[in-house]
Amino acid sequence: MNKIFPGWAKLRKIRELGERWAIKLFFEIFKSMPDMPIPFGDDVSAIPVGGENVVVLKTDMLVGRTDVPPGMSLRQAARKAIVMNVSDFAAKGIRPIAALVSLGLPSDLTEEDVREIASGLSDGAEEYGVYIIGGDTNESSDLTICCMLAGFSDRRRIIRRGGARPGDIVAVTGLFGRTSAGLKILLEGLSPPEHIRRPLVESVLMPRAKLKEGLLLADLGALTASIDSSDGLAWSLHELSDASGVGFLIENVPVAPEVEEFAREYGLDPLDLSLYGGEEYELVVTVKPEIWDETKNALSSAGAQLIEIGRAISEKKIEAVINGRGIVIERRGWEHFKDKRY
Amino acid sequence: MNKIFPGWAKLRKIRELGERWAIKLFFEIFKSMPDMPIPFGDDVSAIPVGGENVVVLKTDMLVGRTDVPPGMSLRQAARKAIVMNVSDFAAKGIRPIAALVSLGLPSDLTEEDVREIASGLSDGAEEYGVYIIGGDTNESSDLTICCMLAGFSDRRRIIRRGGARPGDIVAVTGLFGRTSAGLKILLEGLSPPEHIRRPLVESVLMPRAKLKEGLLLADLGALTASIDSSDGLAWSLHELSDASGVGFLIENVPVAPEVEEFAREYGLDPLDLSLYGGEEYELVVTVKPEIWDETKNALSSAGAQLIEIGRAISEKKIEAVINGRGIVIERRGWEHFKDKRY
Repeated sequence: MNKIFPGWAKLRKIRELGERWAIKLFFEIFKSMPDMPIPFGDDVSAIPVGGENVVVLKTDMLVGRTDVPPGMSLRQAARKAIVMNVSDFAAKGIRPIAALVSLGLPSDLTEEDVREIASGLSDGAEEYGVYIIGGDTNESSDLTICCMLAGFSDRRRIIRRGGARPGDIVAVTGLFGRTSAGLKILLEGLSPPEHIRRPLVESVLMPRAKLKEGLLLADLGALTASIDSSDGLAWSLHELSDASGVGFLIENVPVAPEVEEFAREYGLDPLDLSLYGGEEYELVVTVKPEIWDETKNALSSAGAQLIEIGRAISEKKIEAVINGRGIVIERRGWEHFKDKRY
Repeated sequence: MNKIFPGWAKLRKIRELGERWAIKLFFEIFKSMPDMPIPFGDDVSAIPVGGENVVVLKTDMLVGRTDVPPGMSLRQAARKAIVMNVSDFAAKGIRPIAALVSLGLPSDLTEEDVREIASGLSDGAEEYGVYIIGGDTNESSDLTICCMLAGFSDRRRIIRRGGARPGDIVAVTGLFGRTSAGLKILLEGLSPPEHIRRPLVESVLMPRAKLKEGLLLADLGALTASIDSSDGLAWSLHELSDASGVGFLIENVPVAPEVEEFAREYGLDPLDLSLYGGEEYELVVTVKPEIWDETKNALSSAGAQLIEIGRAISEKKIEAVINGRGIVIERRGWEHFKDKRY
């Protein structure tokens, strides 16, 4: 607060204050529900149904100007609006059942455009076994697709952000950096060789939520904490660290081979692309060390991956030693209002 | 479809096709959930939990350019975003428990503006006993507040749109026309005498959902069909008629006294203001005639109103005889894309 002219502070714009400031403000103002099964600010919310059963809910809004890069079709954008929400369910180990969709559509969209949006929503829903059961259609300047997902769970199954303990193994469900590189290609019109261009661009246009992985990890009871990497790997590690009160020592950032090649081609740092991207829907989890081997094997048997990247430590810092080089993993990633992407 | 150049049809704009066309298209494309407790297109959606229990869900998006008239503060707009959704729960006789809110905020909003929005959401939530348990914050050109409400019910309790039978009494929970008149005042800068200006403008800025009425009517098991009047009384009657396959003979359109006075002052038709308005959150219901008296009395004892306006008839037409004058009640009301309000 400005102590001389306290009123001035109120005139600061949200573009300076940022999304996280707004979220913090909301938590302060909203009255908290008694017996909340999942704390404010985790990836999903829940309401008790009776006994240990809860209804799990999530909403995430896709807005054309920040979430739809050039080159993404309306069908892909609508599908992504579902995938974004499914990814949060995946991180918590919960199967989504039904979706509601509120649309804000620019009035000059054509019949074909609206069909594309409907088809994209349907694509996303069918891929993850979700039924769209209702919604709302409105007129707006920006394309806006607000999805809400619902599912059921035993409250003891839900993997929160806050359960990591020193000694836990930090792991991820796939390789990183593809969406950062893919976005660079789309935004800057780069033309790398086709064999790397295709997977990188595809990672942006057709993202996949790691639902199978999240459900299996919850079935195994293997995790102490979990989050998705939609705001970037570095950001996710910081969120887990804050919520769990532990630090992380990272020994391996699994960079996708196309990203290594892309970085060489354009003189970029592959680690930077992998740590500070976003819109990358891997799961970032902490695993009980005593069942690491069987967990990794179970995922492998199911055709999925679990890659060890480091350990949780008691000191609350996040550092990486990669090829003998020590680096600090900064709290950086995508933030609405502060970052402009398209 | 244009038979000579079928491709042309796809180029029609949504501003010509309208909101109802889009909703119909979505219902065609989305795969329908088995055992859906409430059909597509009713005021709320539901998912079976087990036995007769269902989770009831609703989403409705408020967009600044169509839902926030001049003179409405951000706090009032945010409150309205909750009220709009509560009204649909009220119409179905279900108590909402929790809300999720996705926000799209213009980047030049100030800290004070964001506080106003948070306070308005909190106002609406506390008025109706709802907890806000999660959400999402984004940047957008239009102010966008997408609320999602959740509650629980026995599926047999939910009052659908489609249950009206010939002979049922058609009733409403209050007087009509205030929001039409109030919007005219705000949009056209009219200055009627203060004693009528205040309640008319208030009806627009601080709408109230008839939750107490809806819950009580469901407790009594009095209704065969129900809807709210958010798209106007005439529109609501047409929706009930379509869903139930009955017609209505309306003998009384209860016009608010301030609306009569306003209409005289400005040479307007008070019936038109009352039938074809919108953003008016009364309930429009059909009541079992054998328990009409006790239902009306029960509402009266609870400090609420139930006003008979006519009867359901087997012929599928909607007519009114008001003061001996026969009129046809048209299917007209607010429709996104086709109507421009602000």
